Amino acid sequence: MPNFADRLIEAARLHGPLCVGIDPHAGRIPALFGGDTAEGVQAWGLEVIRLAGEVGVASVKPQVGLFERLGPDGMSALQVVCRAAREAGLVTILDAKRGDIGSTAEGYARAYLADDAPFPCDALTVNPYMGLDTLEPFVRLAKETGRGIAVLAMTSNPGSADFQAKDMGGAPLYARVVTALGPLIGRLQGASGWSSLMLVAGATGPEEARALRALAPKALFLVPGYGAQGAGADDALAGFVRAGNRLEGGVVNASRSVTLPGGAAEADTLEQWREIVGAAMNEAKRDLAGAAGATA
Amino acid sequence: MPNFADRLIEAARLHGPLCVGIDPHAGRIPALFGGDTAEGVQAWGLEVIRLAGEVGVASVKPQVGLFERLGPDGMSALQVVCRAAREAGLVTILDAKRGDIGSTAEGYARAYLADDAPFPCDALTVNPYMGLDTLEPFVRLAKETGRGIAVLAMTSNPGSADFQAKDMGGAPLYARVVTALGPLIGRLQGASGWSSLMLVAGATGPEEARALRALAPKALFLVPGYGAQGAGADDALAGFVRAGNRLEGGVVNASRSVTLPGGAAEADTLEQWREIVGAAMNEAKRDLAGAAGATA
Repeated sequence: MPNFADRLIEAARLHGPLCVGIDPHAGRIPALFGGDTAEGVQAWGLEVIRLAGEVGVASVKPQVGLFERLGPDGMSALQVVCRAAREAGLVTILDAKRGDIGSTAEGYARAYLADDAPFPCDALTVNPYMGLDTLEPFVRLAKETGRGIAVLAMTSNPGSADFQAKDMGGAPLYARVVTALGPLIGRLQGASGWSSLMLVAGATGPEEARALRALAPKALFLVPGYGAQGAGADDALAGFVRAGNRLEGGVVNASRSVTLPGGAAEADTLEQWREIVGAAMNEAKRDLAGAAGATA
Repeated sequence: MPNFADRLIEAARLHGPLCVGIDPHAGRIPALFGGDTAEGVQAWGLEVIRLAGEVGVASVKPQVGLFERLGPDGMSALQVVCRAAREAGLVTILDAKRGDIGSTAEGYARAYLADDAPFPCDALTVNPYMGLDTLEPFVRLAKETGRGIAVLAMTSNPGSADFQAKDMGGAPLYARVVTALGPLIGRLQGASGWSSLMLVAGATGPEEARALRALAPKALFLVPGYGAQGAGADDALAGFVRAGNRLEGGVVNASRSVTLPGGAAEADTLEQWREIVGAAMNEAKRDLAGAAGATA
């Protein structure tokens, strides 16, 4: 199997850079699916995946915390959703933002990146605060299993200004993190030239995204902040690079705006819901693919 | 119910500062309990809790990643262990190192800090990299439910040198984090004067611990790195302060050295295992209580 980066860039070339976030926010799961229970979340997540497969998107990104809030049953729902996404051939990035020292990091890596992982995904988001040795178990297993990690660099929330954007000896912390990641990015480089070590690079900071691209030419970007968080397609693609007649270099996540759009909560039937959510997904897909110059 | 800080400092005054880490490392659960399965981990965790209650310790700290690696069943085991620890009256700090933006942070907070949390604990470890707004949902819920959070400041692994210890405009990043936490520390202050916002302050850096204490006189410390990771009791207590004839100011975690000591894996009977592990737990308790000047 090609490595994660090669699979993701191929999917983005085919479908444009939309990544559909699967974020079961409390109280937002339509009654149609059973509402805000583990069963409801699972049924909703499976339909989001079916629709994402039909629309054709680069990737899906389940948000672990919003499953975890429902306890062990929520984690079972996450497991079912992860398996279904990969069976549907969707490149699955699990948003867990894990990070811990050696043996515990190995535990998290095995939970998500092993071939027999209970929560199988293609890539996992991780937090770099504790240092490079805490990323090593994830990198090692990702290399072995053809999977990837997405390291938080510059996130899209206002608080990213508190530490990530602060100067650390002549460059912001996020730039220090990305520079330090250089050797790991190299180790996970695939046949496409892109690395399976992604960077989370918030769409609310296009200048930062361009700075990150200069520091890490081979890292695919996972861009949050598009849609509900306010950034437009051009800002979201600020860190992408020209490849022939289009832009490439990662995926752009949209969650609430495409999976919980206005009217979806009140849909009476699955058909109505599929129409509303499918339209929102298609619109985001076209918007991003258009801005990237893709024909999808 | 008194707030988390008040309960933890009372327990530490009574028993000394030992916190028993419940870290079910892969392949290390004794065959006696069923080995490295969710069932084995659960049975082992329950006996560790029973023993910790009998020995008398300030706190227990389950390590979530080592349950999570076993999938939804591992998370069920975590749930059972958390509930049993709290029912046994042990102050329970869950080591999850979570962190995410607003609505997802709320999901994680609800999973661990709500009164009806599926994984109930008294405090949760969280990662500050993404900024103060990402800590806010945890602080708000902790305030409401009398619970606490332990924010990563200076961890005990070698990689803490990569970013945490690097200079950010005249002070290391970990000091910047602690300074920024000031108002949140104040908001969670309890009747004892101590705050339910703890700091993770690695025992491998006693100088850093003293620097952190100067910056945050009211934050309890959660000190990893004692025992298996190499630090002695005096180093572990470097950030504690004098209160009467003893030192106080937090808890010191010991995991492998007290729950997986030499010989425990080969114990044939529960009685043998209890003798070996109980002795290790008592030794760490006496070592730390002695260094703190407590009579326990």
